[in-house]
Amino acid sequence: MRAAFCGSFDPPTLGHLDIIERASTLFDELIVLVATNSSKSSMFSMEQRLAWLREACQDLPNVTCKIQKGLIVQACQEHEIHVLVRGIRNEQDCAYEQNMAFMNAYLDPNIETICLFTKPEYDLFSSSNVRELLKYHQNIQPFVPACVFKSLEKERT
Amino acid sequence: MRAAFCGSFDPPTLGHLDIIERASTLFDELIVLVATNSSKSSMFSMEQRLAWLREACQDLPNVTCKIQKGLIVQACQEHEIHVLVRGIRNEQDCAYEQNMAFMNAYLDPNIETICLFTKPEYDLFSSSNVRELLKYHQNIQPFVPACVFKSLEKERT
Amino acid sequence: MRAAFCGSFDPPTLGHLDIIERASTLFDELIVLVATNSSKSSMFSMEQRLAWLREACQDLPNVTCKIQKGLIVQACQEHEIHVLVRGIRNEQDCAYEQNMAFMNAYLDPNIETICLFTKPEYDLFSSSNVRELLKYHQNIQPFVPACVFKSLEKERT
Amino acid sequence: MRAAFCGSFDPPTLGHLDIIERASTLFDELIVLVATNSSKSSMFSMEQRLAWLREACQDLPNVTCKIQKGLIVQACQEHEIHVLVRGIRNEQDCAYEQNMAFMNAYLDPNIETICLFTKPEYDLFSSSNVRELLKYHQNIQPFVPACVFKSLEKERT
Amino acid sequence: MRAAFCGSFDPPTLGHLDIIERASTLFDELIVLVATNSSKSSMFSMEQRLAWLREACQDLPNVTCKIQKGLIVQACQEHEIHVLVRGIRNEQDCAYEQNMAFMNAYLDPNIETICLFTKPEYDLFSSSNVRELLKYHQNIQPFVPACVFKSLEKERT
Amino acid sequence: MRAAFCGSFDPPTLGHLDIIERASTLFDELIVLVATNSSKSSMFSMEQRLAWLREACQDLPNVTCKIQKGLIVQACQEHEIHVLVRGIRNEQDCAYEQNMAFMNAYLDPNIETICLFTKPEYDLFSSSNVRELLKYHQNIQPFVPACVFKSLEKERT
Repeated sequence: MRAAFCGSFDPPTLGHLDIIERASTLFDELIVLVATNSSKSSMFSMEQRLAWLREACQDLPNVTCKIQKGLIVQACQEHEIHVLVRGIRNEQDCAYEQNMAFMNAYLDPNIETICLFTKPEYDLFSSSNVRELLKYHQNIQPFVPACVFKSLEKERT
Repeated sequence: MRAAFCGSFDPPTLGHLDIIERASTLFDELIVLVATNSSKSSMFSMEQRLAWLREACQDLPNVTCKIQKGLIVQACQEHEIHVLVRGIRNEQDCAYEQNMAFMNAYLDPNIETICLFTKPEYDLFSSSNVRELLKYHQNIQPFVPACVFKSLEKERT
Repeated sequence: MRAAFCGSFDPPTLGHLDIIERASTLFDELIVLVATNSSKSSMFSMEQRLAWLREACQDLPNVTCKIQKGLIVQACQEHEIHVLVRGIRNEQDCAYEQNMAFMNAYLDPNIETICLFTKPEYDLFSSSNVRELLKYHQNIQPFVPACVFKSLEKERT
Repeated sequence: MRAAFCGSFDPPTLGHLDIIERASTLFDELIVLVATNSSKSSMFSMEQRLAWLREACQDLPNVTCKIQKGLIVQACQEHEIHVLVRGIRNEQDCAYEQNMAFMNAYLDPNIETICLFTKPEYDLFSSSNVRELLKYHQNIQPFVPACVFKSLEKERT
Repeated sequence: MRAAFCGSFDPPTLGHLDIIERASTLFDELIVLVATNSSKSSMFSMEQRLAWLREACQDLPNVTCKIQKGLIVQACQEHEIHVLVRGIRNEQDCAYEQNMAFMNAYLDPNIETICLFTKPEYDLFSSSNVRELLKYHQNIQPFVPACVFKSLEKERT
Repeated sequence: MRAAFCGSFDPPTLGHLDIIERASTLFDELIVLVATNSSKSSMFSMEQRLAWLREACQDLPNVTCKIQKGLIVQACQEHEIHVLVRGIRNEQDCAYEQNMAFMNAYLDPNIETICLFTKPEYDLFSSSNVRELLKYHQNIQPFVPACVFKSLEKERT
């Protein structure tokens, strides 16, 4: 079974990595899809986000990172993906994901959405929190994979 | 990968069946576990609930129905189950499942909880609604698998 | 159009009265139905609750108070009621009412459930809060109709 | 009693129609009001939305569709409307509607807001979902009244 | 102990004043901080909002009103503030405040966030409701401190 | 300023201790009140719960642990407490605390309720989770103060 985990990853957080690691043990193959459609308003370029994910996932042999072209269901069809993995942190995430899952099931009934709960210690590790910290030149080390932190440190110096 | 779907199934509903069918396509094997610990206050005997589930799942070749002995993580260890499947209908379910998932992950970090969203048309097909209808001698046919309905009809006549 | 407002009214609160007054302006006739099925665990007898409601509603000419026999849909059918009025205080009430409305619509598609929002100043005027205050011999005057307060004062002295 | 159901209807969905049909049985007259104030960001013109609603409601004799001028309470005063009907799909809708109802009751205490629950099968039939589907050239037939679908099909060909 | 209550106060409402008064009894000193970072989209100038707050708080001897420079934690460090006071009206506020509190505790573990519940009668007294009313030339007197009302009346005439 | 933190502490958890430590830095004195009214259904005796709290708080010089007699507001009046500290983990806690705060403010307007957010890593450290683990003879060490763990270990052996 091949599954996908898609998102903006702007930037990837340790919360994302935790879901990726856990999902990679559930399925034969996991494809991490970086969304392009919201690229206009993203803080980091698609290439940068993809590079970070590839480095962060390099020790997970059954995980591949790709750019998501078109709708998520189209990307799933292109890569023969049957399962969409999502992370849920709280009740508000749940309501949002329920609508997304409904829409994707309508567009392609062969695609199943499954949700994993974020570990409590990662509950507030959102990309938007990380971007807010970066905006005010604060330390983001506890929230992101080592490669993201190093890459941003280099830039600053 | 072997997965489990556990519950009281007091009685099984079409909402349960939908989750079972969908989960059975995601994993090599799905074991449906009927909880015994809440049996004191259940409307139907464990044997009855197990028999209904077996009949309702008879056309799903990779689905087996069993009694859950002890804690859910103990049942998972006994049957070498790595994945617990749960159905979520709304935000309140989500908060409850999050706590269960946390507790089970603490008791056995090898067990992963995944949630599937109930289809909107089954959102209110809860066992407690069905029990309420039965209590007032109302028709439950739209809510339950055919075998549950037939079995209860026979009893009435 | 004839509508009903049902509840336990154990005891009636000013929040209940507010909904009754507002609902009585929307429909030709409003019947207030006092639920009997939960009477075992109620603090006040059905007769007491009915008497309080009748006194509290005596100036509302199109409001009648009655005992609810059987299921709410059966009471509606008996009294040719087409509309069930419910009060909502917050999101948790909403989830509960949604399930009740679904069940009643299933049992009788001719019965429509409509919800009115409790006024913010009555948000926390629940019967359970009033019972808690009574249990500890605290003043409940601000929360209940004058007739309920007087009747309980008389009892105390 | 004259009631109103207002909204953007951008475009009208089967969820809207269901509320309109049900509300039309509760009151002598129902006026569907198409909001203009958000017209800048709407996908369809006010004329188009009004025309669709009129066609979709043509078999409901006590339903009239109009443009909403000014604030909703001003439109209600202009058309002598005493009741505002709203549809609620979930807890998040509830919080939003509670604030709207409070504001409208402040502006005109003679206007009462009542909420009907969307049928579960229409829970996710939002106009924003339909717009998202249209944006990606997906089929919207199951979500909208026949006249909306036909009109958009004609445009495409 | 010195505490802060920060916000946009665009404009200040009676709900804000209630929190300020209650918080001022809990701590030796309370500093009300007017946020500047969102000033671009604010309806009233920072000077105006500050002037209103100063007038509204003039009878509270241990309350001082200041402009917030930089991040809230930086303002707290500058003014040696150990406690951030927040008002919560409902469950949605709670989720938002939880994230803010987490972020501020990360940036400076010496700063503690405490929440007070808005009084029920002020639940819907939000600045955004007041701005909406002003936009449509409606009376805002019941929602704002007397000085805000007078100042806006003068402007209108 | 003297504050109180009350609860059942059945048993105390590290989540409770975290709130106690943080609250003790905000006020001159913090009194931890162990509720007696729910003692019938508690797993541990009031004496045991009080002893655990005293041991767990022994290094916090301004913290005292006492039995709560009567209503919480009566205990506050007896000990001249002006502030009630509560911990909030999520939106459901928030709704519950809002009602409690309203009731206590009604009973004694001089008592203010303030809420602190539980740290994310303690979000699921509830006493009821600990009791569930104990019931099934599972390890509770990560969830409770060292003195609680040792005391229960001794009992087992």
